[in-house]
Amino acid sequence: MFKSAQSVERLIAEFSKLPGIGRKTAQRLTFWILKLKKEDATRLARAIIDVKEKVVRCSICSNVTEDDPCHICRDTKRDRSVICVVEEANDILALERAAEYRGLYHVLEGVLSPLDGIGPEQLRFRELMLRLKDDIKEVIIATNPNTEGEATAVYLSRLIKPMNIKVTRIARGLPVGSDLEYADQNTLSKALQGRQEF
Amino acid sequence: MFKSAQSVERLIAEFSKLPGIGRKTAQRLTFWILKLKKEDATRLARAIIDVKEKVVRCSICSNVTEDDPCHICRDTKRDRSVICVVEEANDILALERAAEYRGLYHVLEGVLSPLDGIGPEQLRFRELMLRLKDDIKEVIIATNPNTEGEATAVYLSRLIKPMNIKVTRIARGLPVGSDLEYADQNTLSKALQGRQEF
Repeated sequence: MFKSAQSVERLIAEFSKLPGIGRKTAQRLTFWILKLKKEDATRLARAIIDVKEKVVRCSICSNVTEDDPCHICRDTKRDRSVICVVEEANDILALERAAEYRGLYHVLEGVLSPLDGIGPEQLRFRELMLRLKDDIKEVIIATNPNTEGEATAVYLSRLIKPMNIKVTRIARGLPVGSDLEYADQNTLSKALQGRQEF
Repeated sequence: MFKSAQSVERLIAEFSKLPGIGRKTAQRLTFWILKLKKEDATRLARAIIDVKEKVVRCSICSNVTEDDPCHICRDTKRDRSVICVVEEANDILALERAAEYRGLYHVLEGVLSPLDGIGPEQLRFRELMLRLKDDIKEVIIATNPNTEGEATAVYLSRLIKPMNIKVTRIARGLPVGSDLEYADQNTLSKALQGRQEF
């Protein structure tokens, strides 16, 4: 196979390793970088290095942060009696954007996946249980609405319920702006089960 | 709007500047980087810097290369009587992958686009004309088969024809593996016009 200049091939290879980026996109990105001003390319490279050097995990919730504990765990104006459990730190970003929730978070750093050898010990279950000893009134489970996420939610709810803490699951239903006609069966049945009175 | 750690936001912003990468993809890439081993992230950053430091344009054809002239222009086994004109250096990569062509290249570094103020002076037309003084038998115009690419091809062909050099245009027609039913009108008419005898 034909190869371009070595450093060009290397950058294409590096870009190809990123999720959702195939060979062609990697090529397009590489030639984009080649056309950028040097300082703009350096800024991207620097941002990649920075993020690795500066970002740590919050020792309480495992959010990504430059200061430990993270600004959410430190924020005294937030409701410290509710914990929202998510799979990954980027889920916090998504939820915060919705600007609906004002409690704390807990990142599991994954989901239960027995086939991949990921059991409760591989995730941050123990850390969550320790946090529940504080004055927590509700745990909202916001794992993804797929097989592993649901299984993890069920598992967690069984662990927490005996502690007399309210455990809730984020609603599954039709996405806002979507079309009933195109919704899949499972989403529709969840939407029906989760119906609410006006 | 909620912001994550500063360096995280900065990397998301930098990724968002890349072509075809929106805010959500940038976010996904950033969190991917956060999960990478430090040396893997550094390798990507290094590859970006390297490409800017090492890669230059070939002084003959304007291909991207680490050594000037590029390995295609230096290659004595290639047919030095044919020049294939392309818009951008990445088009060379695509054509070389097809492994059909064994001549030389010439990168225009763009296409004619009067509305964007890009005329013949902004492109590498002059350099091409100078190369045609050598013993060139054919110029294949491989600009993209869109409005600007076609206009550039027509313009070029009018410049070159009086020099008694054969000027050809790459075939436009149905992509291999595609479906006649889904082809657009223009492609179909080009496919008919360009039909060849068995």
